[in-house]
Amino acid sequence: MREFSDFMVMPLALLEKSINKRISILLKDTRVLEGKLTGYDEYMNMVIEETEERTAEQSRRLGVVILRGNNVVSISPL
Amino acid sequence: MREFSDFMVMPLALLEKSINKRISILLKDTRVLEGKLTGYDEYMNMVIEETEERTAEQSRRLGVVILRGNNVVSISPL
Amino acid sequence: MREFSDFMVMPLALLEKSINKRISILLKDTRVLEGKLTGYDEYMNMVIEETEERTAEQSRRLGVVILRGNNVVSISPL
Amino acid sequence: MREFSDFMVMPLALLEKSINKRISILLKDTRVLEGKLTGYDEYMNMVIEETEERTAEQSRRLGVVILRGNNVVSISPL
Amino acid sequence: MREFSDFMVMPLALLEKSINKRISILLKDTRVLEGKLTGYDEYMNMVIEETEERTAEQSRRLGVVILRGNNVVSISPL
Amino acid sequence: MREFSDFMVMPLALLEKSINKRISILLKDTRVLEGKLTGYDEYMNMVIEETEERTAEQSRRLGVVILRGNNVVSISPL
Amino acid sequence: MREFSDFMVMPLALLEKSINKRISILLKDTRVLEGKLTGYDEYMNMVIEETEERTAEQSRRLGVVILRGNNVVSISPL
Repeated sequence: MREFSDFMVMPLALLEKSINKRISILLKDTRVLEGKLTGYDEYMNMVIEETEERTAEQSRRLGVVILRGNNVVSISPL
Repeated sequence: MREFSDFMVMPLALLEKSINKRISILLKDTRVLEGKLTGYDEYMNMVIEETEERTAEQSRRLGVVILRGNNVVSISPL
Repeated sequence: MREFSDFMVMPLALLEKSINKRISILLKDTRVLEGKLTGYDEYMNMVIEETEERTAEQSRRLGVVILRGNNVVSISPL
Repeated sequence: MREFSDFMVMPLALLEKSINKRISILLKDTRVLEGKLTGYDEYMNMVIEETEERTAEQSRRLGVVILRGNNVVSISPL
Repeated sequence: MREFSDFMVMPLALLEKSINKRISILLKDTRVLEGKLTGYDEYMNMVIEETEERTAEQSRRLGVVILRGNNVVSISPL
Repeated sequence: MREFSDFMVMPLALLEKSINKRISILLKDTRVLEGKLTGYDEYMNMVIEETEERTAEQSRRLGVVILRGNNVVSISPL
Repeated sequence: MREFSDFMVMPLALLEKSINKRISILLKDTRVLEGKLTGYDEYMNMVIEETEERTAEQSRRLGVVILRGNNVVSISPL
C-alpha cells in the first residue's frame, strides 16, 4: 500500500469525527436520510439514530436504522 | 485496519442485540419485510421468522425466510 | 472476525437443515422456484431437484437446477 | 470455513458430473443456451460445444462457446 | 480448492488455444466484436487485433482493442 | 504484481497532488460535484469541502461531502 | 495461477506501451473519450491528458481526467 499525505482527512476519519453528530446521507435510490451517526464500519455500513427520511414528496421518522454502505452515494456533516 | 471509537455502536453489534426481536427490513426492490431476527452472518445475510411482507398494495405472511444481505438497503429494530 | 451468539441460527445452517426438504426461492428477476434442496455452497449456489418455476402467468417443470446464489433474494423452507 | 453435509450434492460437483453431457443454461439476458458441457472453472465460467441459442423468437447454432459465469442464472442437465 | 477432471477443457485454456486466431465476442451491451485474439489475462480482459464491431444496424473497423472482461458475455472461436 | 513505468502518473498520485485544490467530479447518476479535495483513500472515496452540485437544471451548495468512490466516473483538476 | 503464453500481449502491457500516446476509450455510459494516456494502475484506472469527450450530439474539452476503470468497456490506441 502507498503512503498517504499527513495533511489530508481520510474519509473514514471524518466519519469518526462525526460520531454522535447529525449527518445527511444521500442514497442511490435518491432518498435522503438525516440523523445522528452512532456507529459505522470499514464498509461504510452505518448506525443512525433519530433518523428522518426525506423524499421529494414527503418526510417520515424511521428511528434507529442500520444502513448498508453499498447503498450510499455521499454523506455530509450537518 | 484502523481503530474504531469505543463509544460507538458497530452495525453488526446492533444486529446482535436485535436477535429474537422484531425488525423491519427495506429491500432494494422496495419491499418491506417485518419479522423476528433469529440469525445473521457477516454479509448481513439474515434468518427472519414470522415474516410478513408489505408492499404498497398488499401484505402477506412468508413464515421463515433466509434473506441475502446484498438485497438489503436498511434495517430498523421495532 | 467477531464472535456470534450461541443462541442464533446462522443463515447457512438453516440451509443445511433444509437439505432434502422442499424450499421456495425468490429470484431477482421476480420468478419463484420451488423444489427439493439437495446441495448448496458458501456462495448460496444451490442444487434443486423436482424444480417448478412459477411466474405471475404460468408454472412449468424444470427438473434438476443448479442455481447461482447471486440471483437469489430469499429462501423459505416449505 | 464450515463443514458441509456428506449427503448433499455440491453445485460444482454436479457440473463435474455433467461433463460431456448436454445441459441447458439460462442467462441473465433471458436467452437460453443448450449444448454439451466440456469444461468449467470455479467461477462457473463454462466451455460449451455444439451450442444452440434459443430466444422467444428464434434459434441459431453458435458452435463452441466460452461463457462467463457471472451472466448465468441457472443450469439444468438435459 | 477442489480437483478438476483431467478430461475437460478449462475456459482459460481454450482462450490460450485461440491465441492468434479469430474469435467472436458478445458484449453485455449486445454488440458483437470479431477479431484476432492476441492476448488475455485471468480476468478475461483481452487484446483483439483487426477488430470489427457489428451491431444490428452497421459494421465498422476498430483496429486494436483492449477489452475489459467484465463486459463480456461469451466468446466463440471462428 | 507487475512493474509500472517510471515515466507515468499513477491515478492515485494525481489525486494526492490535487489535495487542497479544486476538482470536478462526474458521478454515475450524471451529477457533477465541484469542490476542494481534502482527502481520499485507496477506493477513491473522497472528502470534498466547499462542494457545489450541478445538474442540468440547477446548482446548490453541499458544504463538506464524503463521497463513496464506486459512484465516481471521472475526476478532473480545475 | 496458470502460465501464460510467451507469444501473447497482456492487456496491461499494451496499456504500458500506450503511455504518452493517444488512445480512444469507450465508456459504459456510451461516451467516447480521446486523449493522451499518461498513467494507469492494475484496475485500469487511467490518467488522460488533453481529453476530448465525444457523444452522438457534441464534443467538448475536458483537459486532465482521472478515469475509474470500472466504467470502461474498451480502449484503442490511435
